[in-house]
Amino acid sequence: MVTAIVLVQAERLRIPETAAELANVTHVKEVYSVTGEWDIVALLRLPSYEDLDDVVTGQLRRLPGIMRTQTMLAFRTYAPELLDQGFGVGLNEQG
Amino acid sequence: MVTAIVLVQAERLRIPETAAELANVTHVKEVYSVTGEWDIVALLRLPSYEDLDDVVTGQLRRLPGIMRTQTMLAFRTYAPELLDQGFGVGLNEQG
Amino acid sequence: MVTAIVLVQAERLRIPETAAELANVTHVKEVYSVTGEWDIVALLRLPSYEDLDDVVTGQLRRLPGIMRTQTMLAFRTYAPELLDQGFGVGLNEQG
Amino acid sequence: MVTAIVLVQAERLRIPETAAELANVTHVKEVYSVTGEWDIVALLRLPSYEDLDDVVTGQLRRLPGIMRTQTMLAFRTYAPELLDQGFGVGLNEQG
Amino acid sequence: MVTAIVLVQAERLRIPETAAELANVTHVKEVYSVTGEWDIVALLRLPSYEDLDDVVTGQLRRLPGIMRTQTMLAFRTYAPELLDQGFGVGLNEQG
Amino acid sequence: MVTAIVLVQAERLRIPETAAELANVTHVKEVYSVTGEWDIVALLRLPSYEDLDDVVTGQLRRLPGIMRTQTMLAFRTYAPELLDQGFGVGLNEQG
Amino acid sequence: MVTAIVLVQAERLRIPETAAELANVTHVKEVYSVTGEWDIVALLRLPSYEDLDDVVTGQLRRLPGIMRTQTMLAFRTYAPELLDQGFGVGLNEQG
Amino acid sequence: MVTAIVLVQAERLRIPETAAELANVTHVKEVYSVTGEWDIVALLRLPSYEDLDDVVTGQLRRLPGIMRTQTMLAFRTYAPELLDQGFGVGLNEQG
Amino acid sequence: MVTAIVLVQAERLRIPETAAELANVTHVKEVYSVTGEWDIVALLRLPSYEDLDDVVTGQLRRLPGIMRTQTMLAFRTYAPELLDQGFGVGLNEQG
Amino acid sequence: MVTAIVLVQAERLRIPETAAELANVTHVKEVYSVTGEWDIVALLRLPSYEDLDDVVTGQLRRLPGIMRTQTMLAFRTYAPELLDQGFGVGLNEQG
Repeated sequence: MVTAIVLVQAERLRIPETAAELANVTHVKEVYSVTGEWDIVALLRLPSYEDLDDVVTGQLRRLPGIMRTQTMLAFRTYAPELLDQGFGVGLNEQG
Repeated sequence: MVTAIVLVQAERLRIPETAAELANVTHVKEVYSVTGEWDIVALLRLPSYEDLDDVVTGQLRRLPGIMRTQTMLAFRTYAPELLDQGFGVGLNEQG
Repeated sequence: MVTAIVLVQAERLRIPETAAELANVTHVKEVYSVTGEWDIVALLRLPSYEDLDDVVTGQLRRLPGIMRTQTMLAFRTYAPELLDQGFGVGLNEQG
Repeated sequence: MVTAIVLVQAERLRIPETAAELANVTHVKEVYSVTGEWDIVALLRLPSYEDLDDVVTGQLRRLPGIMRTQTMLAFRTYAPELLDQGFGVGLNEQG
Repeated sequence: MVTAIVLVQAERLRIPETAAELANVTHVKEVYSVTGEWDIVALLRLPSYEDLDDVVTGQLRRLPGIMRTQTMLAFRTYAPELLDQGFGVGLNEQG
Repeated sequence: MVTAIVLVQAERLRIPETAAELANVTHVKEVYSVTGEWDIVALLRLPSYEDLDDVVTGQLRRLPGIMRTQTMLAFRTYAPELLDQGFGVGLNEQG
Repeated sequence: MVTAIVLVQAERLRIPETAAELANVTHVKEVYSVTGEWDIVALLRLPSYEDLDDVVTGQLRRLPGIMRTQTMLAFRTYAPELLDQGFGVGLNEQG
Repeated sequence: MVTAIVLVQAERLRIPETAAELANVTHVKEVYSVTGEWDIVALLRLPSYEDLDDVVTGQLRRLPGIMRTQTMLAFRTYAPELLDQGFGVGLNEQG
Repeated sequence: MVTAIVLVQAERLRIPETAAELANVTHVKEVYSVTGEWDIVALLRLPSYEDLDDVVTGQLRRLPGIMRTQTMLAFRTYAPELLDQGFGVGLNEQG
Repeated sequence: MVTAIVLVQAERLRIPETAAELANVTHVKEVYSVTGEWDIVALLRLPSYEDLDDVVTGQLRRLPGIMRTQTMLAFRTYAPELLDQGFGVGLNEQG
């Protein structure tokens, strides 16, 4: 399981629509319209690293209201409940 | 339920430690070390908006390895499973 | 009561009009045309956090003269007159 | 009456203290710790333009926890209740 | 007397014309085409603070060749000849 | 006569002192503490271009409170009173 | 096989040493000292995505001369020789 | 042999096509669509420095989908296998 | 003799043409297409400071392919062969 | 012959000294203290591309007063006198 966080600047008049369309892209778990410099943040859970290109380049970035994106890929996930099993959990040990 | 996403720049030699400490702050759900300009991203689920100050200013930003943070607060969450109930779900309708 | 401060860049020829329109958006208390990098600053007092999305995304950002906005949400308000009641006042204790 | 909005970056471990000290500077009406790139926003109401230098340079910027400030001065205030008296109100007509 | 310094980015093919038009705006004392990141700098001497909005927002920023402006307002003027009268001169003591 | 405009970032606790010292540097006509991203703006009138290095590099930038400077040199001055003599006045025709 | 490109700013006096140390980190294929805003670029070929955290966070970023890094992860590789096999090659088809 | 690394921002809807076209430019060895602020990274191996202008300015930057590029030229290559021959290898000793 | 260095961003498809046109502007000595953030660098030797406005604003910046320029003016020239005559040579002593 | 232009930020109190030291580095032809964001610009003429690393990384960047550098390498030189021989001159045809 690979986690990606995508920061999105969207067309000012289509933020809710773009956020809703983002939420319908495969492997997108949650989408937030947010305060600050960016307009939307999307949280992706991908079965494998190889899905990234299709989901981000192939689908997400092609949505009409998108103006700019910046994808951050998780090296490692540190979830509280996983933490008891030792210092941060490598991705391959993830469910 | 209020969602906040905190972008973090951490001391270069203490990224795993800082991420692990972040994961132990109340209401922090998941923490990722990430590629790109930022080092860590923390996902917070707060019972109410009033918890923000204590969690972010009071705890999260006081962790030793933290150098810079930028907090983005979710206006609205667009989760696929919620979407069937109409166009994006206002925060108060969230579980 | 939630306070938000919105920094606005507006179309150069429509700053007064945009500022006046901003002042008529619900929950907007005061609007200033300002010196510096931004053109307008709007001060919002929202009954609850859930009003944010409707006011900022739904109304404010859709005004014609708006080019770019950056919303800052108040964690905590430190008003002199409230200060006698202890070190800064949590939002829930606010009137 | 002159309105100034001061954006503040403060020392990470002294944000509440710095905000409280800011609230005690003469002519400072409200101070907010905020989300986003800046840490604190202070709202000043000055009897006259000539008070600016003493308040901002002489007091506000000399507080220990302050790292960087950016002062925005209001050209004109557009408050809803004032608006009925015509398109935006010049500062001299303000109460 | 209030001094304002306005940094201007102008249309590349209309810098001299824009500079000349700027020089004809009320209360504009001198205008320079300059080296560096900005194209033009205008020096304004305003009878009172209340003139700012009309001159900068109402006239200066509406000139055709203007693309971006950044207004800096003087807190205090430190002119050598005034200096003998004590450490920097408050604006109200200015001629 | 050559005009230079120097933008200055100064040590937060020494802005008035630095501004006063700047005002005493040869050929510095006026110095302002200002709102916005910069702290001080100095206006220089130099007898000739060759004085620049000595005044800016040799004196101005060596003042103790100075942190960062950005010098803008005037290509051409457009002063209203000069303008009647034709479209903007080349430096050599300046008094 | 996962390709990562890491942009590095290094201590000015230790660029060659830092580049050489980088070249000895596991899975680092080539390292270049470069012109422009960054000092060094490292090209990594990782057996699997899960190696990223250990190599980048665990080893590369902990080298003494490193000041700032920015990791870019390849979504997809487009190598001329692979191209005959159809439009760009997904990572999983890579040798 | 001269190595150049070119960072590319491409039109959002033509990233795969642009990457594939880049891969067909002479002396381009590998092209990656990547996470982060840039969209594509191209790795060039040029027989001699004199080929740069033709390849980068003459071909690469003229591709339709390209919006912005930043070329970084390798001063020196530090490849692990070359390292045994002494501290980093000058370009002229390269194969 | 006054030296100016002009950094130029040019239209992507007209870099060679723009560079060649720049080379034909009076007092332009050499023009380079370059790596990095800028596209072209022009080196100017002007008989006197007063030529700047005509050459840079009047000619150079009006060339069709030019998008953005940043002019840097030399305070002082430090040429090795001149150096034997004492520490850096003031412009007026230059040939 | 390869031309490189190096932009330099130097310690504020050592600009003339740093510029003079730069002028004594091999293959450095001219050095200017300049207006604007950078402090010094160095013009290098290198016999071959392979000299770059030694001159820039090995000598120039190790000078004590240097804080930050950005090297731009010339793809192609467009000198007026060369231009009669056809559109811009490839480096290999340079004297």
